Amino acid sequence: MRQQISNFLDHAATRYTIMGVILFNAVILGLETSDKAMATAGGLIIALDAICLAIFVAELVAKLYAHGLRFFRSGWNVFDFLVVAIALVPAGGGLAVLRALRVLRLLRVVSVAPTLRRVVEGFLAALPGMASVFLLMGIIFYIASVIATKLFGNSFPEWFGTLGTSTYTLFQIMTLESWSMGIVRPVMEVHPEAWLFFVPFILITTFAVVNLVVGLIVNSMQEAHAEESNAATTDYRDEVITRLRAIEERLDKLG
Amino acid sequence: MRQQISNFLDHAATRYTIMGVILFNAVILGLETSDKAMATAGGLIIALDAICLAIFVAELVAKLYAHGLRFFRSGWNVFDFLVVAIALVPAGGGLAVLRALRVLRLLRVVSVAPTLRRVVEGFLAALPGMASVFLLMGIIFYIASVIATKLFGNSFPEWFGTLGTSTYTLFQIMTLESWSMGIVRPVMEVHPEAWLFFVPFILITTFAVVNLVVGLIVNSMQEAHAEESNAATTDYRDEVITRLRAIEERLDKLG
Amino acid sequence: MRQQISNFLDHAATRYTIMGVILFNAVILGLETSDKAMATAGGLIIALDAICLAIFVAELVAKLYAHGLRFFRSGWNVFDFLVVAIALVPAGGGLAVLRALRVLRLLRVVSVAPTLRRVVEGFLAALPGMASVFLLMGIIFYIASVIATKLFGNSFPEWFGTLGTSTYTLFQIMTLESWSMGIVRPVMEVHPEAWLFFVPFILITTFAVVNLVVGLIVNSMQEAHAEESNAATTDYRDEVITRLRAIEERLDKLG
Amino acid sequence: MRQQISNFLDHAATRYTIMGVILFNAVILGLETSDKAMATAGGLIIALDAICLAIFVAELVAKLYAHGLRFFRSGWNVFDFLVVAIALVPAGGGLAVLRALRVLRLLRVVSVAPTLRRVVEGFLAALPGMASVFLLMGIIFYIASVIATKLFGNSFPEWFGTLGTSTYTLFQIMTLESWSMGIVRPVMEVHPEAWLFFVPFILITTFAVVNLVVGLIVNSMQEAHAEESNAATTDYRDEVITRLRAIEERLDKLG
Repeated sequence: MRQQISNFLDHAATRYTIMGVILFNAVILGLETSDKAMATAGGLIIALDAICLAIFVAELVAKLYAHGLRFFRSGWNVFDFLVVAIALVPAGGGLAVLRALRVLRLLRVVSVAPTLRRVVEGFLAALPGMASVFLLMGIIFYIASVIATKLFGNSFPEWFGTLGTSTYTLFQIMTLESWSMGIVRPVMEVHPEAWLFFVPFILITTFAVVNLVVGLIVNSMQEAHAEESNAATTDYRDEVITRLRAIEERLDKLG
Repeated sequence: MRQQISNFLDHAATRYTIMGVILFNAVILGLETSDKAMATAGGLIIALDAICLAIFVAELVAKLYAHGLRFFRSGWNVFDFLVVAIALVPAGGGLAVLRALRVLRLLRVVSVAPTLRRVVEGFLAALPGMASVFLLMGIIFYIASVIATKLFGNSFPEWFGTLGTSTYTLFQIMTLESWSMGIVRPVMEVHPEAWLFFVPFILITTFAVVNLVVGLIVNSMQEAHAEESNAATTDYRDEVITRLRAIEERLDKLG
Repeated sequence: MRQQISNFLDHAATRYTIMGVILFNAVILGLETSDKAMATAGGLIIALDAICLAIFVAELVAKLYAHGLRFFRSGWNVFDFLVVAIALVPAGGGLAVLRALRVLRLLRVVSVAPTLRRVVEGFLAALPGMASVFLLMGIIFYIASVIATKLFGNSFPEWFGTLGTSTYTLFQIMTLESWSMGIVRPVMEVHPEAWLFFVPFILITTFAVVNLVVGLIVNSMQEAHAEESNAATTDYRDEVITRLRAIEERLDKLG
Repeated sequence: MRQQISNFLDHAATRYTIMGVILFNAVILGLETSDKAMATAGGLIIALDAICLAIFVAELVAKLYAHGLRFFRSGWNVFDFLVVAIALVPAGGGLAVLRALRVLRLLRVVSVAPTLRRVVEGFLAALPGMASVFLLMGIIFYIASVIATKLFGNSFPEWFGTLGTSTYTLFQIMTLESWSMGIVRPVMEVHPEAWLFFVPFILITTFAVVNLVVGLIVNSMQEAHAEESNAATTDYRDEVITRLRAIEERLDKLG
């Protein structure tokens, strides 16, 4: 029975059907944002959305039954589970945010399409290598936030009033958005030496970001390089060494 | 007859003449934007523009006659056809947009100059490899637009009123233009937790863009690497293996 | 005695304790920025901060005693010394800036954690290779600042009044923040040809920055390449040459 | 005589003196921007500046005499000549711009210092490889400027009134500075479909710029790769082939 359900779920036709349901659901959820569409066919749209959700829930329950607890060993299954679970929560409550997050279930398209899965897995695989730079940036942000709050918190509470607002403002400055005309020039009218804090902050964080990107490039390049050349090179080198040994053995016999 | 026309069109002198006409047309179309030039010599400018267009049409018709339907097999021919066709449409209608698009016929310079053709072909060749990342970004944009419309559409109809305006605003945010001072800070005055949506959106889309660029670099590097080294290396390796085999054979004979 | 203290300081348990004190101090310094926390437990927070600082001072004094003047030979020791020294200075004075800089002592986390140390050392190692480009950018900034001050200083004293403000404004322009809507368009209303100065400045400095990044990438790639391939390749090549020599010698003996 | 002057100019002491004069002149020209310095010692500053300029002119005249017309064969000599010539022109006229450009003579620091010379030569060497992409971007900018002037020139004369202002505005948009909040959103209030022009323009020009950078990286990498590995590899390969030939010859003798 379990095996049968598992086979049914893995079947290409089932997977394409699910993909179709996701895409249909995407259109439905898009229509839900249109006041006009909701005014003319709101009931139908909500009903179709509920049917799509029911299909997802049915698929998940079937998968859970077929695989048992092994289901949760795959990260993608956990992802599907969470994304569908979010869609079920607000049915009980009434929070606008949770209702909006129900749209996240469209992300299931990624877990269903192998190509997209691989792209996301590639993205995630790059993260551990960047962990220590991220950690360093976290430390820099924390220290810079404390300093900015202490120095500019009283004069500019909207930007540097608390640790949280300071961190947000420093993130904005790191992205270079309105850093000078919007933030640093007004701050410098009160604290004329403020650039001594902000310009080094920009240089250091930008340099760290550049190093992250350089790390990504070097990593991808090495992987690509390793995949490509090593097979041919290793084969060639093995053959050369084997043949040299063969020649030596023959010379041994001759000698 | 067809062959003769084909030869005439492929002739270097013809191609340089067409190039000259395009460049001359570029100057004419530039003059058309100047009120002063149009006031003093408007009739002449429009007449010269019409002559240039007539030459392009004549060349295209000749090419179509010479090659028949094979003409449409080359992407560049289709491109030329469309770009000249656009210039002919508004003669009938009176739309300002179509009149402005007539300028696109200057893009024929690209299809005529082999160097520029190669650059554009290089650009297009890079696109398929980035298709899955583009698809993923499309999915992220669609989901983020639906969520943003649902969450912020009522409070900020100008930015997040419909799916379309949300997508445009999110594109602006992805380019980091005024994302904080212009959009997110005003939004946070109504929805204080809005940064929980926008900061991850910026991080994810920026990371995806960085991955696109990294992919481009790795691809170009591999192509450059393959072209450069492989010929010499393969020759060398073949020679080494051949010589080693010959030595073994001789030793066999000696033995 | 000195040896014993040195052993004690190098002990894993001691190092983890210091790390714990730094992290605890980070929380304390964060709480200091919160008015609510200071109102309810200000005395305790300041006392705990003083204890953390005392521990750092004790550790440093112990290290200084254990290593003597050799202590200052390691850049990281000098860094620890300065960062703790800054925290001691304001105890005497009353400057808000120095009090804010006391937070820098949290940077000790970097000198204590070997992973973070390596990241920072990697960053610093990249700097000398970029020295000449930095020098060139310094020259360009100095010359551009003098020119901008002379040309626009009278009309826009806030942006180009002195060498210092000009350099700051040009740095803002290099980061592309509000360069046109904020600075160059207003300037062009007085000096219509100002774009002849600013657009080339943007192109040249952006190009220099791109070259810095390209240099970083090429450097990292070469290092990665050298580390990875050379060991295996050198071994292989040495073996091939050795075996070929041995074969020649045997043939000499045979002959 | 000519030879003697040439030797004197090439002498290390002379070159260091000139370098010193340039750096001293940099300080003088910096002081000229300070109202306070000019008020207290204006006469001295202007006199010292004139002396520095006189030294540069004397050096150039000596070089011209020593090398004759061969002087102009070196790009750096022409550069020195122009940069000093600019400093002499305004002595006759009274234009503020030319007086400001006299500061450009500080760029001589680049032609005197071999390290900086190499950096600039490296920058210039990268340009020819990017010529066709630059040309393509020029074509795109010209066509886009003509279209933008025709479509938006009447409604927004300040931004798109003439070909020149359109090109400047499109350059601003390419750098992503205030492209949406500053330009495209106001334009869309009059022409709601304007994003159909601007978003593709941004995507295409950004993609072209990314390709320029990718080209730079691949080029630098190949050069670095070629320099580094080829010497060792070629030596090794030559030795392998030579030894294999030697073995074959001995086998010939044996046979």
